[in-house]
This record gives sequence, structure tokens and C-alpha cells, in this order.
Amino acid sequence: MSKSVFYHAGCPVCVSAEHEVIELLGAENVEVVHFGNDKSRIDEAEQIGVKSVPALVTPSKNVLHINFGASMADVRG
Amino acid sequence: MSKSVFYHAGCPVCVSAEHEVIELLGAENVEVVHFGNDKSRIDEAEQIGVKSVPALVTPSKNVLHINFGASMADVRG
Repeated sequence: MSKSVFYHAGCPVCVSAEHEVIELLGAENVEVVHFGNDKSRIDEAEQIGVKSVPALVTPSKNVLHINFGASMADVRG
Repeated sequence: MSKSVFYHAGCPVCVSAEHEVIELLGAENVEVVHFGNDKSRIDEAEQIGVKSVPALVTPSKNVLHINFGASMADVRG
């Protein structure tokens, strides 16, 4: 199975969701991208269809927006 | 691992998310509850903290609200 990608921006809602997602899927199945540490990934995420964070993009490139934390506009700042 | 529970109400957003969640977690790890078929589970879901569907409740009873489909008020109709 290829990896899912969990995009987040370090907000409390994001960190809580990250913990849950890693527990459910297994750390080896999830790449975690923190926009605060890696702003270069913001364009990629928006192109896939990420509208808010935290969001999980599945291996089949479907976007699951989880408990609303912040809009992508907020992430861009 | 105990099961996660995926609550939904049959909306298109729900069905799409259900497919993704089952693919990610494996059908054997997820109990799917469709409120249209089982209204008696609505109280249980609200007590756990489900505010909208589709929602995934993890084995540790944390609620992950996924792509907003319908509020619980709509589910009660």
C-alpha cells in the first residue's frame, strides 16, 4: 500500500487528529507534512484539493478533511 | 485492536468517505452505522460527541469529523 499524507499546520486540532490518524493507520503508512516547517508543500496540497487542515490524502488521492482546524487561506497567512 | 465506528446517513459525501475509510483501515476494523437503517444509534453517537456525519469514532473514543455531510440535527430530521 502506498502512503497516505496527513497535512497539518500545528494547530491543537491538527495535533490531536495527527495522533489519532497515526494510531489508526500506523506511522509507517502515513507521511506527515507540517506546513509551518515546509511551506513549499502548500501548493501541492491545494492542487490535490486540500481546502482546510488537518486533512488526510489517501493513496488514491481522495481528500478527507478532518475536524476543521484552519483554512488554507489561514495557512498561507 | 478494537473497532472504530463509522457513523453516516447515506449522503453522497458519507458514502464516498465510507469507501475511503474502509480502504484505509480494513473492513474488519470498522463498524459502519447507517442512521437511516438504525435510528436507535443516534443517541449513542451524540453522547460520544458526534456533531456531524460522516464521523469516525476511534477505539479510544475520539471523534474525527470527516468532510462535512450533514449535521446531527439534519439526521434527526
